[in-house]
Amino acid sequence: MELDQIYAPVREDLNLVRETIRSLGKDADYEWLARQLVHITQGMGKAIRPALTLLTGRTFKYDMGYHLPAAVSVELMHTATLVHDDVIDKAPTRRGRATINSLWGDELAILMGDYLFAKAGEFVAETRHPRVIKLFSQTLATISRGEIIQFRFAYNPDQTRDDYFRRIYGKTGSLFSLSTQAGAILGQASEEGISIMRDYGDNLGIAFQIVDDILDFTSTPEALGKPAGSDLVQGTLTLPAMLLLERYPDNNPVRLFFETRDKEYATQAIQMVLNSGVIDECYRVAREFRDRACRGLSTLPGLPSRKSLLDLAEFVVNQKA
Amino acid sequence: MELDQIYAPVREDLNLVRETIRSLGKDADYEWLARQLVHITQGMGKAIRPALTLLTGRTFKYDMGYHLPAAVSVELMHTATLVHDDVIDKAPTRRGRATINSLWGDELAILMGDYLFAKAGEFVAETRHPRVIKLFSQTLATISRGEIIQFRFAYNPDQTRDDYFRRIYGKTGSLFSLSTQAGAILGQASEEGISIMRDYGDNLGIAFQIVDDILDFTSTPEALGKPAGSDLVQGTLTLPAMLLLERYPDNNPVRLFFETRDKEYATQAIQMVLNSGVIDECYRVAREFRDRACRGLSTLPGLPSRKSLLDLAEFVVNQKA
Repeated sequence: MELDQIYAPVREDLNLVRETIRSLGKDADYEWLARQLVHITQGMGKAIRPALTLLTGRTFKYDMGYHLPAAVSVELMHTATLVHDDVIDKAPTRRGRATINSLWGDELAILMGDYLFAKAGEFVAETRHPRVIKLFSQTLATISRGEIIQFRFAYNPDQTRDDYFRRIYGKTGSLFSLSTQAGAILGQASEEGISIMRDYGDNLGIAFQIVDDILDFTSTPEALGKPAGSDLVQGTLTLPAMLLLERYPDNNPVRLFFETRDKEYATQAIQMVLNSGVIDECYRVAREFRDRACRGLSTLPGLPSRKSLLDLAEFVVNQKA
Repeated sequence: MELDQIYAPVREDLNLVRETIRSLGKDADYEWLARQLVHITQGMGKAIRPALTLLTGRTFKYDMGYHLPAAVSVELMHTATLVHDDVIDKAPTRRGRATINSLWGDELAILMGDYLFAKAGEFVAETRHPRVIKLFSQTLATISRGEIIQFRFAYNPDQTRDDYFRRIYGKTGSLFSLSTQAGAILGQASEEGISIMRDYGDNLGIAFQIVDDILDFTSTPEALGKPAGSDLVQGTLTLPAMLLLERYPDNNPVRLFFETRDKEYATQAIQMVLNSGVIDECYRVAREFRDRACRGLSTLPGLPSRKSLLDLAEFVVNQKA
């Protein structure tokens, strides 16, 4: 199933999210500031996070007066983190488009990221809901701490699966979880409903990141907009490389690469990941998290939006190349 | 009068702010993350912003349940902006201590700044006051936009005084204003009271920044922790250099420096600023903003905290060397 179909119950409202975000550029005082904002906001990808907020809202008591600013807010927070990540990774492109840092320098990219965090904060404040607002700030803290840990653990081959899952929860799961929880809280869901949607967000985010980490090995450079195996080359130990380390503890090219930084070993490791069965194993792990994500959904009302949440979970773990 | 005396009505509560901020390091999961936080938070300077929140609160209905998190929040936001500024300015030291970027690299400094913004957001969310929370995000947007504009206007000699005042309002006035407004709103002040405290914050912040820009020329490198005239050398046009340009439009070394980037001209410009009367003129302008800041205070109750706000304004414009 295509995303477009999955998003059907909120298609128009998701377009409103996109328009609201694009219009940030129109409101800006300075023409060049507006140009940057337009550049950043046109790059919006699959918009999974705002879709989660809207689909969750639709499953409970839907009110665009609250769900629209919350959806805009999670997408802006996501965009802000990407702008800063690209500075940190010195990335020249993202989704096939030149990054802010490559176009206008690191300094402006840092400041633009801060500006987008602030705008995200303004939108979440519009929900006037203390619990959602608090969760927003906590999530930003979790994401930043996750990124700090990822940076700190770079080129460290001795990480456990637990370290990995905690790291990708921080990096991706926490924002998926904010997106669904905000949708549920603002939809006046019961505590049980909120907890079901939190579990869905937590676990779907982890599944999403596992698949993202798989695709970093298996996709073409054209699809990725960067060379395959970039995570490994940058010293980030993801599940495929981790499983390779578990299976072949001796003379493992991942460990040798991290120890020597000799790119020959990285090339070897990438080949080995592709030719061993670890990719299938990674998909299996992702599907386990998908199952955990969807476990509670059966108790929710059988609306089209609930069907969409189930389909979205399926979509996430079926992404190939 | 010394700051310590001025802060007397809130001395103990200000210590509580400092303790709360320092304890961030104790709560951190990772020892090295804690080390960084301790390093950052020990560098707390005059703590003017949280003092403004507390002194304003004391002038109205004081409740540390709300005023403490708000005060912590404004200081953390300030700290976060400094951490990012130091990356942008490639500053090796701040307040005589090594900066995060010089100790642990730009990447970690960007992420630590994000983390501190998030923590600031968590504390402001604790006030549970939608208006204060919204103001917090708007202020962060204003600060970031101000920094973007400063960066964009670097080495541009054709800025008006109006450009300058708008820029330093964004950079400093807006956060002073958040600090006082939060104190008033959370102190259940009337709209008139809030507006008086907003004007005080706006104008005191501008006065503070003008004096800061003066001191950048007149202080010793020891007191500044960096060479005198750093703003100019980095291409930031501040009031002293601006007045020099107004007085001596022909062959002006500021303009020549911005056009050629030849440091000889910067040295000349710094000497000229010190030997002409522009510094006195800048202090006069700062005192005008002090007067505007204090204009409304006479209508507030004659409490010790109001006296402190007046004394603080005096302190700000009397800072020398």
